[in-house]
Amino acid sequence: MSEILTMDMINEARERLKGVAQVTGLSMAHSVNDAAHCKVYQKMENLQRTGSFKLRGAYNKVASLTDEERERGVIAASAGNHAQGVALAAQAYGTTSTICMPAHAPLSKVAATKSYGADIVLKGDFFDDAEEEARRLEKEQGLTFIHPYDDPLVMAGQGTIACEILEQLPETDVIVVPIGGGGLISGISVAAKNIKPQIRVIGVQTENIPSMRESRRNGKRTTVSGPASIADGIMVKTPGRNTFDIVQKYVDDIVTVDESEIAQAILMLLEQVKTVAEGAGACPTAALINGKISGISNKHVVSLISGGNIDINRMTRIIDNGLIKAQRKVFFDTVLPDQPGTLNKLLAIVSETGANILNVNHERSRRDIELGYIIVSLELETEDAKHVESLRQKLRENNYEVHVK
Amino acid sequence: MSEILTMDMINEARERLKGVAQVTGLSMAHSVNDAAHCKVYQKMENLQRTGSFKLRGAYNKVASLTDEERERGVIAASAGNHAQGVALAAQAYGTTSTICMPAHAPLSKVAATKSYGADIVLKGDFFDDAEEEARRLEKEQGLTFIHPYDDPLVMAGQGTIACEILEQLPETDVIVVPIGGGGLISGISVAAKNIKPQIRVIGVQTENIPSMRESRRNGKRTTVSGPASIADGIMVKTPGRNTFDIVQKYVDDIVTVDESEIAQAILMLLEQVKTVAEGAGACPTAALINGKISGISNKHVVSLISGGNIDINRMTRIIDNGLIKAQRKVFFDTVLPDQPGTLNKLLAIVSETGANILNVNHERSRRDIELGYIIVSLELETEDAKHVESLRQKLRENNYEVHVK
Repeated sequence: MSEILTMDMINEARERLKGVAQVTGLSMAHSVNDAAHCKVYQKMENLQRTGSFKLRGAYNKVASLTDEERERGVIAASAGNHAQGVALAAQAYGTTSTICMPAHAPLSKVAATKSYGADIVLKGDFFDDAEEEARRLEKEQGLTFIHPYDDPLVMAGQGTIACEILEQLPETDVIVVPIGGGGLISGISVAAKNIKPQIRVIGVQTENIPSMRESRRNGKRTTVSGPASIADGIMVKTPGRNTFDIVQKYVDDIVTVDESEIAQAILMLLEQVKTVAEGAGACPTAALINGKISGISNKHVVSLISGGNIDINRMTRIIDNGLIKAQRKVFFDTVLPDQPGTLNKLLAIVSETGANILNVNHERSRRDIELGYIIVSLELETEDAKHVESLRQKLRENNYEVHVK
Repeated sequence: MSEILTMDMINEARERLKGVAQVTGLSMAHSVNDAAHCKVYQKMENLQRTGSFKLRGAYNKVASLTDEERERGVIAASAGNHAQGVALAAQAYGTTSTICMPAHAPLSKVAATKSYGADIVLKGDFFDDAEEEARRLEKEQGLTFIHPYDDPLVMAGQGTIACEILEQLPETDVIVVPIGGGGLISGISVAAKNIKPQIRVIGVQTENIPSMRESRRNGKRTTVSGPASIADGIMVKTPGRNTFDIVQKYVDDIVTVDESEIAQAILMLLEQVKTVAEGAGACPTAALINGKISGISNKHVVSLISGGNIDINRMTRIIDNGLIKAQRKVFFDTVLPDQPGTLNKLLAIVSETGANILNVNHERSRRDIELGYIIVSLELETEDAKHVESLRQKLRENNYEVHVK
């Protein structure tokens, strides 16, 4: 087993977290099982206090500090979940916390972190700017820095999740875990393989920034750049030193998912599991329902929903995109002669096919329309691609031009 | 205790439901506690199989039929949760189910019910039409009708929820339950008061159709009409005969919530509890966070999330409305001289106040604008009413007209 992270450390973390972290449940939805061809148990760390697993590691670290280290106050850099975990842990120990965040962090995350009593420092446009500021304040003010993932005590806290899983479902064959810096999967893989050596632990990264997968391929820590991802919680460009070593030893495979697969998984978790997952938290489900993981047919698979702190404005956009992608929402334009009754006739044909009309717009004044014609734009709720195709067919039979957007 | 619904019946239902209904968890969010001034434990029946508690009663009823009754096939009328409960129960017993639904039932609910093997009959525009059709088919085809609430065996199934609650949290002081036809609260109040006589059971109805509250006030079953509600699961115009008697005996109080309170609760459950509640399921939370229930300060209160089957298109609209209401999203128009740089200057002022710009539209061609001017419409993410007011102030100081929509 790993030298820097031992099962004893994880067991100690478990004792410290009693009465602090909730023992989160496992939830199952048959429709997810059908899509994944295995039994998928969602481990609901989105229902953890602060809305993510990060509380476990942050609290274990703060609890393990010397009185002197703790009394100096703690500092961290984070745009999200680690911020809330550190702030709550500091509050529980009656010490101060300072959290550096990028200036344009979502207002809801800033407010949540403030609510745990943290002092917020907004700095720069990117996470790196916030981290630099945190390191500066650490030195300047003698604060105690809490790393988000590359600290064995932080990993030990996250590892307690695996202990719970294997008590709740001893028959677990596979655990699927999102990877950012690697702290979560390090803790989980060490704990899980210690308790049940034959278990498989699979990591999931976003295709946009697959830094741990690339590091694994190259056999050394590799920095990867890429576009921003919906899975903002795992946008880490370089894996940790310690976490990389542990992942190399204990993680069986790393797969990636793309943005639309993540959006689809968020939508499926909302509709079928009735739960709110943030982008990173939906990655394991995305990998499972898109056949990214081999050898799981009919196995007992635990999919970790690592957190639920998703910006609500962003969520509505993801839902819309997901519905459009699945052709459950469709927009189209058609050109009609500008005569009484023509719009009614169009809407009647649409309704007959069973589509629900969400929005109708008709325009006379666009320059690209001939005089005597109008453009009608429809937003419809439909069942699926088949339904949309039959609708299109029906409209063509009735001599309507159809421009699906 | 009630003569038609006994604790023995509820205990028998519990035996039948073992391995069928999930024992759903209790979940807590501190922000909900703060808003409600008590400890609120959400009983998560939205995570029940089929997405609502209705499975319990429907399964208990189907399980209690004679072989002969069952073999004839079962029939029910429902636009939603009862449909799925009956269909799954019938499937489990290897018999057929026919579900009558209004013709314009949400496509997602039709699809979910079909997925449990039900034959769907779409009939009429309203629930009453579907019910009439179900009663007709019951007679014509000799099917066995499963009532959604006024059947003691259905109530007994719902009552098992109270047994779970009092095992999970023996210190429960109050249970808050949505009321439609009254089957859920009948089962829960009989079970809860049998186990712990001093417990209080409070019902919540939508202000739009408060039929049980009116019946209680009038001392007799009363039919109430009203506009449709987001809480479609509890839009019942006349309480059941049996349920009315039980509610009169065992329910301590009935309160109501309005549409915007329900929408606000749905949003709070999504953001803070990370869970998807349908309108009816959010009513207890709505009552708690709006101070509708007296004498709960610092008590242990269980709030029942009865279901999570909300249409996803509807949900995005509710989220938007909730954000606009809380002034976390704001739309406004301003008129600018049509010169290079004026838009940039406006956007810079807005950004300085910390508002996130979600959408910008500028128009030159509207007839109500003087030549030489443009209208700029902004959609902004803001923190709260205070933030919006300071933004408005700042813009006025800079000589912008502001028309908040």
